[in-house]
Amino acid sequence: MGSRCQDRGMPRVSQDHLDARRRQILDGARVCFTRYGYEGATVRRLEEATQLSRGAIFHHFRDKESLFLALAEDDAARMADVVARQGLVQVMRDLLSGRSEHPADWLGTRLEVSRRLRTDPEFRARWAQRSQQLTTATRKRLVWQREAGNLRDDVSIDVLTAYLELVLEGLVSHLAMGLPADDLEPVLDVVEESVRRHRGLAGT
Amino acid sequence: MGSRCQDRGMPRVSQDHLDARRRQILDGARVCFTRYGYEGATVRRLEEATQLSRGAIFHHFRDKESLFLALAEDDAARMADVVARQGLVQVMRDLLSGRSEHPADWLGTRLEVSRRLRTDPEFRARWAQRSQQLTTATRKRLVWQREAGNLRDDVSIDVLTAYLELVLEGLVSHLAMGLPADDLEPVLDVVEESVRRHRGLAGT
Repeated sequence: MGSRCQDRGMPRVSQDHLDARRRQILDGARVCFTRYGYEGATVRRLEEATQLSRGAIFHHFRDKESLFLALAEDDAARMADVVARQGLVQVMRDLLSGRSEHPADWLGTRLEVSRRLRTDPEFRARWAQRSQQLTTATRKRLVWQREAGNLRDDVSIDVLTAYLELVLEGLVSHLAMGLPADDLEPVLDVVEESVRRHRGLAGT
Repeated sequence: MGSRCQDRGMPRVSQDHLDARRRQILDGARVCFTRYGYEGATVRRLEEATQLSRGAIFHHFRDKESLFLALAEDDAARMADVVARQGLVQVMRDLLSGRSEHPADWLGTRLEVSRRLRTDPEFRARWAQRSQQLTTATRKRLVWQREAGNLRDDVSIDVLTAYLELVLEGLVSHLAMGLPADDLEPVLDVVEESVRRHRGLAGT
């Protein structure tokens, strides 16, 4: 018990140090995955990209998969942040304009793990857990929009959430494959408008 | 010139034989890609799946990539067929119900080549050429729907085509990743309705 208390009371600077080290690993790993893809990001390359030894890296993350999932969680958290303030369509617009921190190369790693997601239920469960916060933020935002009278009310929040997430998946896939995207801005207008209350039907 | 004329006049049975052999290779290759993924479908496994030697296989297709792209073309042609009769949303409904000939495992190979698509412009160009017929069929169907007065007319055919294709990409990605899809039927209703003329606004 004594030592556990000591752990909890450990100097703040140490936790800061751990956090900084974790951040250093995540930043380096993201660059590495983006450049070489999931499979191509070998331990050797992760060492180079993070400027840390494999010992240091895997002290913080169980394995490459955990490192990748931590980045996915990072993404979901940042997207959830934008969703809370501006909605999921804004996340899509940011992806499209290149203003987001998710370049196509990085998005591509998501597709690269698709086979793994399909064939490995444990991996899929861990992935789903990470994505959950984006779904939660989207649903919350839609509830709020409905209460403000901005949302169509003939379709449930769950269906609208799934709809927006499906379009996001399409956009991620599209961008990750490097397909032309300069014509997609008006498509997102259609998406946005299709969850809104129809002006022509307002009050009915 | 003499020999070229002879080529053009070669016995019909020979062409039938070539077509049948080609079909045998495509059918076997599809099973093989579905089971092992694009990378995992080695020449050895392609031989097993098609019951043909590598010599015979690569007499018909330049390489594994060409074989894969021929299957993508097959897919696009079949989908274009459904689109012409029932529209792109029906293609999505078929994918969802498992009634289509594109099981999730096969769809997964599409995501697997995403990295290749992104990094190899020649491959992307060949892929795009194959997908073009689906786009053409979708646009044609929408033109016809607009003429029949079933389509909203405040958004261009091009934008609506891109919209439907983006949702299809999302669905393919979703299914390929093995994510739960039992709640997507009403989502496709939203998609379908969002390209239709709004009843409340009809005639305005």
